[in-house]
Amino acid sequence: MDLLIIGGSDAGISAALRAKELMPSANVSIAVADGFPNFSICGLPFYLSGEVADWRSLAHRTIDEIESKGIRLLLRHRAQTVGPKQRTVAVTDHTGRRSRLTYDRLVIGTGAASVRPPINGIETPGVFFLRWMADSFSVDRYLNDKQPKSAVLIGGGYIGMEMADALTLRGIKVTVVEFADTVLGTVTPVFGKMLQEELERHQIQVVTNTTVESITVRNGAMIIKGSNQFEISTDMVLVAVGSRPETALARSAGCRTGLNGALTVDRHMRTNVQDIFAAGDCVETWHRILQKPTYLPLGTTAHKQGRIAGENAVGGDAAFEGSLGTQAVKIFDLVVARTGLGEREAKMAGFDPFTASLETWDHKVYYPNARLMTIRIIGDRPTGRCLGAQILGRHGTEVSKRIDIIATAIYNDSKVSDLVHLDLSYTPPLSSPWDPVQMCAQAWLREQERGSGAPG
Amino acid sequence: MDLLIIGGSDAGISAALRAKELMPSANVSIAVADGFPNFSICGLPFYLSGEVADWRSLAHRTIDEIESKGIRLLLRHRAQTVGPKQRTVAVTDHTGRRSRLTYDRLVIGTGAASVRPPINGIETPGVFFLRWMADSFSVDRYLNDKQPKSAVLIGGGYIGMEMADALTLRGIKVTVVEFADTVLGTVTPVFGKMLQEELERHQIQVVTNTTVESITVRNGAMIIKGSNQFEISTDMVLVAVGSRPETALARSAGCRTGLNGALTVDRHMRTNVQDIFAAGDCVETWHRILQKPTYLPLGTTAHKQGRIAGENAVGGDAAFEGSLGTQAVKIFDLVVARTGLGEREAKMAGFDPFTASLETWDHKVYYPNARLMTIRIIGDRPTGRCLGAQILGRHGTEVSKRIDIIATAIYNDSKVSDLVHLDLSYTPPLSSPWDPVQMCAQAWLREQERGSGAPG
Repeated sequence: MDLLIIGGSDAGISAALRAKELMPSANVSIAVADGFPNFSICGLPFYLSGEVADWRSLAHRTIDEIESKGIRLLLRHRAQTVGPKQRTVAVTDHTGRRSRLTYDRLVIGTGAASVRPPINGIETPGVFFLRWMADSFSVDRYLNDKQPKSAVLIGGGYIGMEMADALTLRGIKVTVVEFADTVLGTVTPVFGKMLQEELERHQIQVVTNTTVESITVRNGAMIIKGSNQFEISTDMVLVAVGSRPETALARSAGCRTGLNGALTVDRHMRTNVQDIFAAGDCVETWHRILQKPTYLPLGTTAHKQGRIAGENAVGGDAAFEGSLGTQAVKIFDLVVARTGLGEREAKMAGFDPFTASLETWDHKVYYPNARLMTIRIIGDRPTGRCLGAQILGRHGTEVSKRIDIIATAIYNDSKVSDLVHLDLSYTPPLSSPWDPVQMCAQAWLREQERGSGAPG
Repeated sequence: MDLLIIGGSDAGISAALRAKELMPSANVSIAVADGFPNFSICGLPFYLSGEVADWRSLAHRTIDEIESKGIRLLLRHRAQTVGPKQRTVAVTDHTGRRSRLTYDRLVIGTGAASVRPPINGIETPGVFFLRWMADSFSVDRYLNDKQPKSAVLIGGGYIGMEMADALTLRGIKVTVVEFADTVLGTVTPVFGKMLQEELERHQIQVVTNTTVESITVRNGAMIIKGSNQFEISTDMVLVAVGSRPETALARSAGCRTGLNGALTVDRHMRTNVQDIFAAGDCVETWHRILQKPTYLPLGTTAHKQGRIAGENAVGGDAAFEGSLGTQAVKIFDLVVARTGLGEREAKMAGFDPFTASLETWDHKVYYPNARLMTIRIIGDRPTGRCLGAQILGRHGTEVSKRIDIIATAIYNDSKVSDLVHLDLSYTPPLSSPWDPVQMCAQAWLREQERGSGAPG
């Protein structure tokens, strides 16, 4: 049984490990386009900030660790085309030499690429994207060689926010340019504005409602121009406006694509082509609340989908249980986390959402170092179903695992009222007898009760 | 509609607030035995440690805040007997004056009392219990007046552990005497031993397998003697060996008692006597996994049960969804949390438990300050059902809200395999693509798979 995996990031490595775990006799090979299998690309901002001293520590596992499991790594082998009838994949190694790999089952985990927005001059040296290790080496080299004093980040999403933090830590004056009203558009604008204030407290300039149109060079500096007469001079540009699935290889095999051009897969991570599975940032992701595919490329999801693809490729029957779009980010001392649907997403999906927002202490205020957090719970008015939640608070106040309590409830189709009944842990240094999450659920219910009148 | 509530701690106040919220026209009165309604008695150790400077800040709400909701507080009114036919409660105020209060509905929240073990000399001055504000004032006065250099804590449970921390913070040399093999018997002995090491690192002496038998006074110091020739001289003793329900009042009304002598209630918090509800540490608590009553006195549960009693007393039909015995405690820099059943409890309940234990980092180890935590998941072998979990880790690593993820899963009758599918949040400073909880669930499954053979 020859299992061939294309892609050495989260999905591909997870697939290989799971397959080998379940079927030790399988021949499992992974073709990795670069020389950096199993790197935590979510960690790149922390490498560039200097918080991670050695880029090698970004590896989830070393090459030796992977090979010790009996997995064959074909480094610097780029897959070009798939011949599904012959069950072959044409690859080119870094010397340009072509060869043909055969498979009984194929798992495609080719990931995504950075979106290149239509900006004149985007090819200018000093303009960077950030996705793979090579990208981060380019940025690092530029930071060390050119010692830029200023940087413009195009895009106020997760990577933009983390890089704003990272470059500020390195003493660089940062400007964030975001086309929408607020940064971090995946959470409520209320949180986007609070995050903007945190950035501004750290001397970062945040420019919203602005589309960058051109990058030119004048007297050795880059001039960035955009809508609303935006113009700024800078030493460096980082573009982080999203990602698009890498599907050329799969399409050469006849795999269908759907939403955002991502590969269409079933919940067993099977493509439409016999014996070809796909997982991670290159595929559509089943949404557990919407009960339909979305495009939600996340490392957590890639790990899960890869594990399922690997299991099923060796004869298993595992199913992906769906994503809730759960995410967390730490920016300076702030943590912002979300799960499920936002109010706007819920409306678009046909729900009748109602949001309760509560500001409260992370633990009993009499115990030292209590800090305020803001919790928002979104529920469906007619059914009471919990649709989503967002929390913004300080680092060290269990914001991210509090969102996970709600993610776990939503996974189980809970109502907002179920949150009140949960038996959650309490000790004064860490929570309150009603956890903040439950206080917010009570606030949500109170509003509902006011509408419907009290019993008795 | 006259609602009378006996008891001004968690259950009683929660009942009053909920009733008034749902039926603003109700006359809601609370007879409070002492002058300290709605105090966070879980906070007493932090007051005695000096971390909470002013005992007044231990109040969840001030008297003014409670009264501003239209709730009548009868402070220093001790209820003596209930006449269920006449619907009256005989009370005595602090001057000794007797009176009779009437009710349409009665909620009894008389709480629990400290267990007094059969130790000769337990009445010796300098021997303390810790439950109510008056207890903590006595301890505080003794600490200030006598400046004890040493203290013996009898009992290595939650309060004993927190007081060991508290008195050490105040510069007192502490000895903990525990009758069992390990301290904190509510968690695995493995964790009990790790906690013991943490105590010993802070110069606390821990004596296990020892029953204290007598306390005598010699030359101004107390001599504590126990089994195994145990003998120690000390300036102060604190006894914390558990609590027993306070039910005399309810029994005077004809309310039945059950397990541990606690009041028998249904899941609507109704006693067997018409129009009398009861909640909190004085009642049996429905266990969600065992599906039968237990005695599990906890502040979180008292709040929930009180809220339900208050709702139902004004005509509602809320039901208590059950306890999982979820608890957390912080001792020095260590946090220990549990939910659901331990392995021994699971066996006694007729399950076939299997435990997986995993030591791993709280977040990606490449990001600074990653710390190790140990997670144990207990599942039922034949069904795969998740029965319980315990985590021990460092303060600041989201241990308590990680246990709550599992508590939420267990609330929903999840299998261990469901934990792997959960869409939990991830960012390198706060977790890993598989949260530690999920890694432990995978370890649990791996063992099962090894037993049953791989698919394909």
